[in-house]
Amino acid sequence: MTEARAEISDGVVDLLGVLAYGELSAFDRLAEDARSAPTLAGRAALAAMAGAEIGHYEMLANHLHAHGASVEEAMQPFRKHVDAFQESTAPRTWLESLVKAYVVDNLAADLYRELSTVLDDEVRRLVLTVLDDTGHSAFAEREVAAAIEADSTQRDRLSLWSRRLLGEALTQAQYIVAERDGLAELIVAGSVDLSGIAALFRKLQQGHAKRMQVLGLG
Amino acid sequence: MTEARAEISDGVVDLLGVLAYGELSAFDRLAEDARSAPTLAGRAALAAMAGAEIGHYEMLANHLHAHGASVEEAMQPFRKHVDAFQESTAPRTWLESLVKAYVVDNLAADLYRELSTVLDDEVRRLVLTVLDDTGHSAFAEREVAAAIEADSTQRDRLSLWSRRLLGEALTQAQYIVAERDGLAELIVAGSVDLSGIAALFRKLQQGHAKRMQVLGLG
Repeated sequence: MTEARAEISDGVVDLLGVLAYGELSAFDRLAEDARSAPTLAGRAALAAMAGAEIGHYEMLANHLHAHGASVEEAMQPFRKHVDAFQESTAPRTWLESLVKAYVVDNLAADLYRELSTVLDDEVRRLVLTVLDDTGHSAFAEREVAAAIEADSTQRDRLSLWSRRLLGEALTQAQYIVAERDGLAELIVAGSVDLSGIAALFRKLQQGHAKRMQVLGLG
Repeated sequence: MTEARAEISDGVVDLLGVLAYGELSAFDRLAEDARSAPTLAGRAALAAMAGAEIGHYEMLANHLHAHGASVEEAMQPFRKHVDAFQESTAPRTWLESLVKAYVVDNLAADLYRELSTVLDDEVRRLVLTVLDDTGHSAFAEREVAAAIEADSTQRDRLSLWSRRLLGEALTQAQYIVAERDGLAELIVAGSVDLSGIAALFRKLQQGHAKRMQVLGLG
């Protein structure tokens, strides 16, 4: 059992590391967006979501620590790509903030769910818990639907915005996969048809397209 | 039992309201300070503290809701004073951030502990849980002690800073007490020697002075 505890592949450290930095980065984004909320209730709702991200971060950090890996070191390789994504997609309005949180959280959830098939039971349970919806999706869907109904020009603007978010996210994801061999191996191991990384990205795009229809932006 | 659930005095709504807005405001402050942390570990530590504040906020909101009160309405009267305090004491350095968090959290804890004697069991337990140290004190003590040792000129600067924080906090607290009759009654009811509000403020100053000695800033 102690042997099993100690074993953790480079690919899994990478996976948990990019997930951890993603949570920390999402915390920042939500905390900042909370301040631009039009109501006190909206501010509290976003702050609570930020709090949930940090709870997840701590679970990942604890797991890495239990396996002798440092979360700070595990996150390090991903900072520049995640930060670049955040900088290239800084929301200018409250609605852009909400759509961004919705798009990114769901893309990340899809990505990790795809990869979870190659993880051992303990890590899979951890990843699925961490990706548990923090209540953001329902909140975003409600707010965005109300905004589109009130002003139909918002639809085109937000639809364009969601496409840009997807593009920037996939760009940074491609850089990461190109740089991190362990992570790339994990993806290839997880693909049933050997088409690997291209197939994964295609799946992510399809999931995104479906969600945009749900949101009224398809 | 259902009767007791429904009963909640104006003073208690005020108390939980100012505590709730204090938590929301502390979340903002810690989330922003997290971004200026010199290390990724410091950033994660402050983000985790911010997450804890939001957990507390949710407990207070749930309690108010269970008693038929709205947390948004309960917070409203205190926004301007808490915001004024935050604006008049915006930290310019990482150390000022840490000292501020330390001073404010502990002042708030002292204040609510004093008032908890007049609360019923359920509210008292809630308040004491919410004021549970979120790990900030030990972290701040360690970081400040190390900074003072490395550069003794920091001692005078941070000592002055902590005095200013106390002064601004008591100023806003006095405004609040002057405006909120229910809260003032709660304080008077809680003072054993009838000296009431002045005695409470004196106690807070004494507690602050003791803590500053612990921190090496006395």
